[in-house]
Amino acid sequence: MSASRADAIQYAHKNQERFLDLLKEIVAIPSVSTDPERVGDVRRAAEWVADRLRRLGVDQLQIMPTGGHPVVYGESMKAGSGAKTMLVYGHYDVQPAEPLELWESDAFQAQQRGDYLYGRGASDMKGQVVATLCALEAVLSAGSLPVNVKFLFEGEEEIGSPNLGSFIASHKDLLASDFAFNTDTGMLAADLPTITYALRGLAYFELRVYGPSKDLHSGLYGGVVHNPAQALCELVAAMHDDQGRVTLPGFYDSVRSLDAEERQELSRLPTTEEFYLGQTGVSALWGEEGYTPSERVGARPTLEVNGLYSGFTGEGSKTVLPGWAMAKISCRLVPDQDPRQVDAQLKQFIADHAPKTVRCEVINLVGGTASISDRRSEAVQGVARALEQVWGKRPVFRREGGSVPVVAQFQTYLGIETVNFGFGLPDDGVHGPNERQHLPTWYRGIDAIIHALYNLGEG
Amino acid sequence: MSASRADAIQYAHKNQERFLDLLKEIVAIPSVSTDPERVGDVRRAAEWVADRLRRLGVDQLQIMPTGGHPVVYGESMKAGSGAKTMLVYGHYDVQPAEPLELWESDAFQAQQRGDYLYGRGASDMKGQVVATLCALEAVLSAGSLPVNVKFLFEGEEEIGSPNLGSFIASHKDLLASDFAFNTDTGMLAADLPTITYALRGLAYFELRVYGPSKDLHSGLYGGVVHNPAQALCELVAAMHDDQGRVTLPGFYDSVRSLDAEERQELSRLPTTEEFYLGQTGVSALWGEEGYTPSERVGARPTLEVNGLYSGFTGEGSKTVLPGWAMAKISCRLVPDQDPRQVDAQLKQFIADHAPKTVRCEVINLVGGTASISDRRSEAVQGVARALEQVWGKRPVFRREGGSVPVVAQFQTYLGIETVNFGFGLPDDGVHGPNERQHLPTWYRGIDAIIHALYNLGEG
Repeated sequence: MSASRADAIQYAHKNQERFLDLLKEIVAIPSVSTDPERVGDVRRAAEWVADRLRRLGVDQLQIMPTGGHPVVYGESMKAGSGAKTMLVYGHYDVQPAEPLELWESDAFQAQQRGDYLYGRGASDMKGQVVATLCALEAVLSAGSLPVNVKFLFEGEEEIGSPNLGSFIASHKDLLASDFAFNTDTGMLAADLPTITYALRGLAYFELRVYGPSKDLHSGLYGGVVHNPAQALCELVAAMHDDQGRVTLPGFYDSVRSLDAEERQELSRLPTTEEFYLGQTGVSALWGEEGYTPSERVGARPTLEVNGLYSGFTGEGSKTVLPGWAMAKISCRLVPDQDPRQVDAQLKQFIADHAPKTVRCEVINLVGGTASISDRRSEAVQGVARALEQVWGKRPVFRREGGSVPVVAQFQTYLGIETVNFGFGLPDDGVHGPNERQHLPTWYRGIDAIIHALYNLGEG
Repeated sequence: MSASRADAIQYAHKNQERFLDLLKEIVAIPSVSTDPERVGDVRRAAEWVADRLRRLGVDQLQIMPTGGHPVVYGESMKAGSGAKTMLVYGHYDVQPAEPLELWESDAFQAQQRGDYLYGRGASDMKGQVVATLCALEAVLSAGSLPVNVKFLFEGEEEIGSPNLGSFIASHKDLLASDFAFNTDTGMLAADLPTITYALRGLAYFELRVYGPSKDLHSGLYGGVVHNPAQALCELVAAMHDDQGRVTLPGFYDSVRSLDAEERQELSRLPTTEEFYLGQTGVSALWGEEGYTPSERVGARPTLEVNGLYSGFTGEGSKTVLPGWAMAKISCRLVPDQDPRQVDAQLKQFIADHAPKTVRCEVINLVGGTASISDRRSEAVQGVARALEQVWGKRPVFRREGGSVPVVAQFQTYLGIETVNFGFGLPDDGVHGPNERQHLPTWYRGIDAIIHALYNLGEG
């Protein structure tokens, strides 16, 4: 270990208590982005982050307006043109804390109990933002930054980042980097350092099936009119075959296949059949034949029914033949599927399968592409080595089933891949009451980011 | 025509204005059975009916308590033991009039406009009850009743007759008759006298499909858990084959088949494909292959989805993998299906088809048997002849798709068939605003009941 690296780690260890105080400071700012009454608090959180960056000597520091909450931008390019430039992404907004009565301590007065710090945002993701800022402080205390760094902190992640895509698209030069660095994806367990190298995309639809022009009496008309709720069920049922494969035409055509090496890597994940049985309470799993649970969730596309509605849904009985029926249907996409193609595939499926006895409408509500990073890239390997340096074991490489749109946006607009990791744990209770950060993992995380900065500088 | 029959008809024609005033009187009593604040009005309507029966010299007159609104009973057995006894059924309660602002005149102040009398209950079925009472008055004015008559007027039809079945079952001797007489089923058109000789039964269920123990994130779990909304759709879709037949095991085993003569009779009905297309606004009908629309609705059993619910049904998108899904499913039954057998058939179907990846529950909410009357019986033929005497054409014989539980209850508890007819029309707006009775049809109806009473006395 180089002298400066060792100094930085030592500095971080000495300052753990002060670092924790910094986290408590920003947790105390209730930056709930969805709450119109919290606009000022969201702004205060942006200013808090900007103030920390200022103390680190960051250049070009700006709180930049968007159509909604602002973006905090800054950069430190002193490592020079020979060094790589990383784009540190994070969000300083949080989910609402309600229902407040379920919190054992004040959501916005972080409280340490045992190994945990409790408070809204302690894990998602103020904890990760502060860990990154503290790691940078430690490295700067021991010398200069070994890499160039640009910072992009947004305040709208918890409301779906409605303004971030256009911000990135309109600031391509400012944000130009070699790779992005996102600590929002967490670890599978406290002893299992995790890099998430792929995220699924999303194509979300509402399918409406219209039958008679109004609700009818099921006795007087049942038998001559195609019940639209039944027709909807028939269409939805036909969207999978008996091997659990999605039957939209061409759905798998552009799906990138898994090779033996990647399947071997995914088999190291703890997301086994037993894991999912325990997490979900079902008696048997389901899914596409020929793939493991980790592969089905991370590396294979799926089609889900998110909601159903038709006719009478109250208590008891009402003999109505509904005039229409609705399903919310979404596909999780993997590289190289295009949500616009999936939209066309669903519409083609409906054109092929809908009977002439009903009328169908497909409304496309959301579309986002999947993202994937090369596990062998210098950036990913630099972070992987850092995690191994701290945990003493090689991280697992995970393909995550959910979607993080910003990662796809970096890929689309800036042409860069993202290293996704972080120090949140599955049982942190993010978005719920009593959110917490596991502090031993958090301190290790700061050490890991320090190592990563040096590793990436050497890369 | 006998002298007394001619006298009775003449009396009815002379008294049309007074008869109409009687109908206006009872319409003015807002006997809304579902409204707890109207208990006194419902009682007043019962007393009004009892008062009319008293003026007709009826014996054994009683307002009899039930678990809810009372039953009005009376009898006139003076035709002697050689004559038939008919059980006149009717209900003196009405649907609520709300939304009141849609009425063009006060719902409970009957107003004549053109050929119609507007008011709640003018058609359903105070109009029919008063027509019967007026016809009896006319016959009595011309001599004695040619048949024995028992009267059973209930006050809970519009809330599903919750107490009538047990009342009938516990008063079998009192109600013992040769046949029942129900004027609540109306005509298909003003120039089309109609006898409804069969009504479908009902078996109503809630099917619940349970998946994971709670709602899951569709990205993190989509692909390994059988989505219960999808599983529900798969089950519902499998409940019909591609000929539109219901696939519950044994569903058709006890269905009484149609012979050529009955099919010929049903082919006279105006409920053609064009009729249903016009009524429903669909571009193509649907149903069991090999049967006409009239047969599908009246003489064949069906399975309908009355409601669907699962997961997220609001505006926009929510990426939830629902924990459960629900369908309201009901079967319309025909003779000789038993709703308890259909309950067993649905449970067997679920046992046969439900995958082990979900858990299913079938809740039986309603069960009622179908009913059918012999079209060749003396009672039906006596009424049919009466309708022909007034309209100058043979009535059509209809199998109606809906259910009238009291008809099945008379069959079950008293062992008697019912002659179902009446003088309401399809466009009377029953249960809605501006309910009305077509008065030329109503006056013809009074004449027809007079003829029927004489015909049945001759039978």
